[in-house]
Amino acid sequence: MKQVLISLILIVFCLDAFSEDKARWIWYPGDFEVWLHTEVCGRRQERGQIYPPFWRVDSPYGLVRFEKNYEIAEPETISIFAEGRYQLRIDGDIVYHFDPQSFVLPAGKHDLQFLVENYKTFPSLLVEGEMVSTGETWKVTNQDQVFYQAEAGKFYSPQQPPSAFCLEYKPVSGKIIQKNGNSVLVDFGKEIFGKVIVADVKGKGTLELFYGETRQEALAETQAETYDLLPVDRTVFAFDTTETRAFRYIYATGEPGVSFGEISALYEYLPVEYKGDFECSDPLLNHIHDVSTYTLHLNTREFHLDGIKRDRWIWSGDAYQSYLMNFYSFFDEDVNKRTLFALRGHDPVETHINTILDYSFYWMIGVYDHFFYTGDTAFVKQIYPRMKTLLEFCLNRANKCGFVEGQPGDWVFIDWAPIEKEGEVSFEQLLLSRGLEAVAQSAALAGDGEYAAKCYRLSEQIKEEIFETFWSDEKNALLHGRKDGVLSEIVTRYANMFAILFGYCDDTMKGKMRDHVILNDSILPITTPYMKFYELASLCEVGEKEKALDFVRDYWGGMLKLGATTIWEAYDPSQSGDEHYAMYGRPFGKSLCHAWGANPVYLFGKYLLGVKPTSPGYKTWLVEPSLAGLEWIKGKVPTPDGVIEVFMDKDIIRVRTASGKGILRIKSKKQPGVGKGVVCSSVGKNLYEIKLDVSSKEYTIRYWQT
Amino acid sequence: MKQVLISLILIVFCLDAFSEDKARWIWYPGDFEVWLHTEVCGRRQERGQIYPPFWRVDSPYGLVRFEKNYEIAEPETISIFAEGRYQLRIDGDIVYHFDPQSFVLPAGKHDLQFLVENYKTFPSLLVEGEMVSTGETWKVTNQDQVFYQAEAGKFYSPQQPPSAFCLEYKPVSGKIIQKNGNSVLVDFGKEIFGKVIVADVKGKGTLELFYGETRQEALAETQAETYDLLPVDRTVFAFDTTETRAFRYIYATGEPGVSFGEISALYEYLPVEYKGDFECSDPLLNHIHDVSTYTLHLNTREFHLDGIKRDRWIWSGDAYQSYLMNFYSFFDEDVNKRTLFALRGHDPVETHINTILDYSFYWMIGVYDHFFYTGDTAFVKQIYPRMKTLLEFCLNRANKCGFVEGQPGDWVFIDWAPIEKEGEVSFEQLLLSRGLEAVAQSAALAGDGEYAAKCYRLSEQIKEEIFETFWSDEKNALLHGRKDGVLSEIVTRYANMFAILFGYCDDTMKGKMRDHVILNDSILPITTPYMKFYELASLCEVGEKEKALDFVRDYWGGMLKLGATTIWEAYDPSQSGDEHYAMYGRPFGKSLCHAWGANPVYLFGKYLLGVKPTSPGYKTWLVEPSLAGLEWIKGKVPTPDGVIEVFMDKDIIRVRTASGKGILRIKSKKQPGVGKGVVCSSVGKNLYEIKLDVSSKEYTIRYWQT
Repeated sequence: MKQVLISLILIVFCLDAFSEDKARWIWYPGDFEVWLHTEVCGRRQERGQIYPPFWRVDSPYGLVRFEKNYEIAEPETISIFAEGRYQLRIDGDIVYHFDPQSFVLPAGKHDLQFLVENYKTFPSLLVEGEMVSTGETWKVTNQDQVFYQAEAGKFYSPQQPPSAFCLEYKPVSGKIIQKNGNSVLVDFGKEIFGKVIVADVKGKGTLELFYGETRQEALAETQAETYDLLPVDRTVFAFDTTETRAFRYIYATGEPGVSFGEISALYEYLPVEYKGDFECSDPLLNHIHDVSTYTLHLNTREFHLDGIKRDRWIWSGDAYQSYLMNFYSFFDEDVNKRTLFALRGHDPVETHINTILDYSFYWMIGVYDHFFYTGDTAFVKQIYPRMKTLLEFCLNRANKCGFVEGQPGDWVFIDWAPIEKEGEVSFEQLLLSRGLEAVAQSAALAGDGEYAAKCYRLSEQIKEEIFETFWSDEKNALLHGRKDGVLSEIVTRYANMFAILFGYCDDTMKGKMRDHVILNDSILPITTPYMKFYELASLCEVGEKEKALDFVRDYWGGMLKLGATTIWEAYDPSQSGDEHYAMYGRPFGKSLCHAWGANPVYLFGKYLLGVKPTSPGYKTWLVEPSLAGLEWIKGKVPTPDGVIEVFMDKDIIRVRTASGKGILRIKSKKQPGVGKGVVCSSVGKNLYEIKLDVSSKEYTIRYWQT
Repeated sequence: MKQVLISLILIVFCLDAFSEDKARWIWYPGDFEVWLHTEVCGRRQERGQIYPPFWRVDSPYGLVRFEKNYEIAEPETISIFAEGRYQLRIDGDIVYHFDPQSFVLPAGKHDLQFLVENYKTFPSLLVEGEMVSTGETWKVTNQDQVFYQAEAGKFYSPQQPPSAFCLEYKPVSGKIIQKNGNSVLVDFGKEIFGKVIVADVKGKGTLELFYGETRQEALAETQAETYDLLPVDRTVFAFDTTETRAFRYIYATGEPGVSFGEISALYEYLPVEYKGDFECSDPLLNHIHDVSTYTLHLNTREFHLDGIKRDRWIWSGDAYQSYLMNFYSFFDEDVNKRTLFALRGHDPVETHINTILDYSFYWMIGVYDHFFYTGDTAFVKQIYPRMKTLLEFCLNRANKCGFVEGQPGDWVFIDWAPIEKEGEVSFEQLLLSRGLEAVAQSAALAGDGEYAAKCYRLSEQIKEEIFETFWSDEKNALLHGRKDGVLSEIVTRYANMFAILFGYCDDTMKGKMRDHVILNDSILPITTPYMKFYELASLCEVGEKEKALDFVRDYWGGMLKLGATTIWEAYDPSQSGDEHYAMYGRPFGKSLCHAWGANPVYLFGKYLLGVKPTSPGYKTWLVEPSLAGLEWIKGKVPTPDGVIEVFMDKDIIRVRTASGKGILRIKSKKQPGVGKGVVCSSVGKNLYEIKLDVSSKEYTIRYWQT
């Protein structure tokens, strides 16, 4: 016991002295996430029944070996904390007879190994010493003879290994808005998520709690998507707490023999910082932005979930939008990484991610976009082997033109829309080409130059082949697809939007797509916020920001007018009454708090404030703000090293920089007025670029609206 | 509650009426074994430290879907027991609101699905109905879009899902043979395995238990391979029970403040039936057979372990011999299947089985040999996909001649012997060729004709290439190998023995190998019972059974003379005293109860009683008994459908058949005397074959020794 005390004293000392190198729990890359996913993905409930996913869910490796080559001048005492049983080896030899929480490392250069076994959660390790502590300089293997850098997160405390990960809670209370015998309807004022607490439950019988995103849903009892039927059998008062549920309303009804008291809840949330912000002269857009951010936050949890009432699963296509929205709001890198690891699981790849062809590509692109916003090369290196095996799976199923088509068992999703999904859909080929680019760039980062070259080459080929095959001079657009060798005569928005967004076409072609597709009302309209994400972005890319905002006012504004406190999975303005809440053939099947609805968070940040990185991790960045018809806009966009603040009205633009080298690009009828020593260059007709190369500085620019 | 009672009554009725179709727990193929392996493989202890394997250990899939297409005329109530949470679907629709232990299946033709989630052990399901019950007619998927037949074992009770699997126990007591102050040395009379019980432990301090396969090891205290240092801190008497350990001796010593009473044990064992038997006129051989069988039994547990004191792991090469010995003793098919599934785990294959090149091939051959003895086509079909991916892994690492060599990270084991293991070792090519045959035959059984053809073709090529490359007319033998393009000038026994055993050479070549290798004392001798297994078999194959028996008398007899109560991992007659117990650089590192030492169990059954299947599952079989210099032999060899009994002395042979068509092949100076109606044909000089085609019949044959 004496030795432990001494070592603990040493730790306190060393943590002060080397706070940068604070010991952290380490694990096998992705296995914290893979484990957490097993905990989370089966929490979906449908009318009292559990509902785990319909694809393979992997478990973490239960036996992994951590290794560290160290060199120390003097022997030092390390404290050891492992989640699981472990074996300690020095230079390959097992160490016998030591206090399992404390060990004196021999001086000199040695190879230290911990073989940790834990099949219940996953193996993790914390070693605390003055010179030798666990962190990302350790290596780890699942004993497949491949070594990775050990993964480490923000877990420092011996008492809290990574498997102790949990979200945070705040008590919230509702208001009884209806009472009838032994039944109450409670309104929490807005959609929330958490554990429901029923006070003073007593008696014998069933206490039924029906959850509603709307009042109608709660009152629909077993037609509600989620509910709890709690058996009660007790003679003393006690509290009941449920699993986490999503609701605004709770309809509680007790059988005659059951009595119960107040119904409140523990709001459960991921503690994120609201780093991004947006405000403008239009209160409706401000309201939309706030509700969108709240919607995003509710769905940003252990992972980026699709919706909180129903699936509570990670869907790669949905999550891809969340990664991007996250970069304009919380800039929480960890939740992106958790999501990407969990979605991918382990090898072998036997189906597409979520079984959806498109979703495999969104995953690859998501990894690269995460890197581009964060500059986190280490993450790319860790996950790259899994990108490669996923891409190989896709390429092995490509046809002889190199195009991908849905194979038996694949789901070709694209969008909830009545379109042809069989054969070579042009949209899928664009995702393939972008996916190839993402893997190529990641391969280069991971040092796999040969594979990078292969992917670049393939991507170029596919791109050429896409335009050669699907571009129609007659329609001035990319056609929808080809099936059994026959080209579709139909144009849909998907491929054309993505060609614009991926920068695959020049201005002439872009113009044709704008006029003949994006602004063409005879082309099948998009009706989900999901694809609206891309359509609104492409509208902005082709210079139609005002139109994009008008749509946001109508569509998002429409939901708010109907009383939405969070943004919905889908919204059809032509519907009325309870029709709005139905989906999938069920009266309340629609999710009224769906991450993909939070689109304006991204749209306003990227296309109004106009901030985006131009090299990985915001080492360089661009601000291209736009009023889009508003009087003024202002807001914040987070970067890895601080927040960029932007203000714009009809006369001036103010930018407060973070770090990195920025460029402000603006239209102005004449040379803008910049401060002393600030470089402003003309880069086209009425177009200027101003260098913002001092960190944390506020630049004020006078300009003249064009 | 009423409904449950009714359904239980129905079950009792249906189990009586349809006892053949008794409901059984089902699971995803191999995952009971994969899970059990995670429980077992880390039980190795080395001087107080845990010692899990140094290869990847897989976990079972935590989410699987069971499916059954049923058709019933009337609705019926099924009882449902799942280990894990489950969701029930009829024709794809989730079922809401039902007693989770009981459900009324609708009449007609329906698709019934259970999605079961369990990440703690593994998902399993028991459904009991009159017409619809779980069993091997159900399908299962891990949701990778591949369906397997559900795996079912001997688990029938709702209270005992497969994860409740455990071995059995019998109390055993030892004798105090030395007492000194607060220390005792207890002798259990022979090596056993089990949990140690220390009675009446009281006081404060440490109670140390040192286990010895020998008295010396127990008394060597912390030099013993295994021990328990039990902390004691109590003021009332209580019993302590340890984890399972292997020992004959226990040296127990308490610190002054600790008192303890009797030391006994719970012998832990797999309940097997001793179906095989062997007895002869030489009491030494009988003793050897009994000790070998006991050694095999101690190591035949959840899986075929290598040894019970030290590794307690499954090693594919060791296990291969156990499968074969098992067929001549317990004929416990389940332990073979458990071992084969556990060794293989899940895809992807990233290393050889146990990291050993040879051991991947033994695994493939093991699957096929298991099939050949049992006729269990269903098992082959279930495991075949994993044979294919393992073989593909091996073939992807072959060189341009198609030969395999150790790659970085591979262990080329062959045997504990000072031989060249780098480059193209001829022995490994023989295993490769045989492995290809095994996969080819399994592929044919699994309906993968194309792959079967590929493997046959490859196997033939490799076989030709082996003899073309390694056969030396000068040495009259296969050379040891080729390294960097240079042929070895050395002949070792391995390749030559295996060429004989695999039937790859004609009688002329066999004769050359016998004279120039097997009986040639200048060739490096074999010193482990492991390779002796093959050497003794090849001696028998070349007609040198008496020599084989002489070796058994000397080598196995030698261990018995030294007091062995079980057979050792290795034995060198030239050593003396405690030298015998040392291995791996540790004084008691050698395992004195090692499965591969049980070789005589197989040797006597296959080569003295001479019984073996000639088509899968003993549909046809051969008895070719041999006295090998003994006065008489008698014994039993189990088959899937009963036991074949053989007696032979110098005048008569008696065979009691099981089922299947048998042939008795014997040498006799003149036409043997067979009973009326029994067909006896001459098949060579002094060689006769007698048809034993009536089941469960005793045939008595008079013959005349040649």
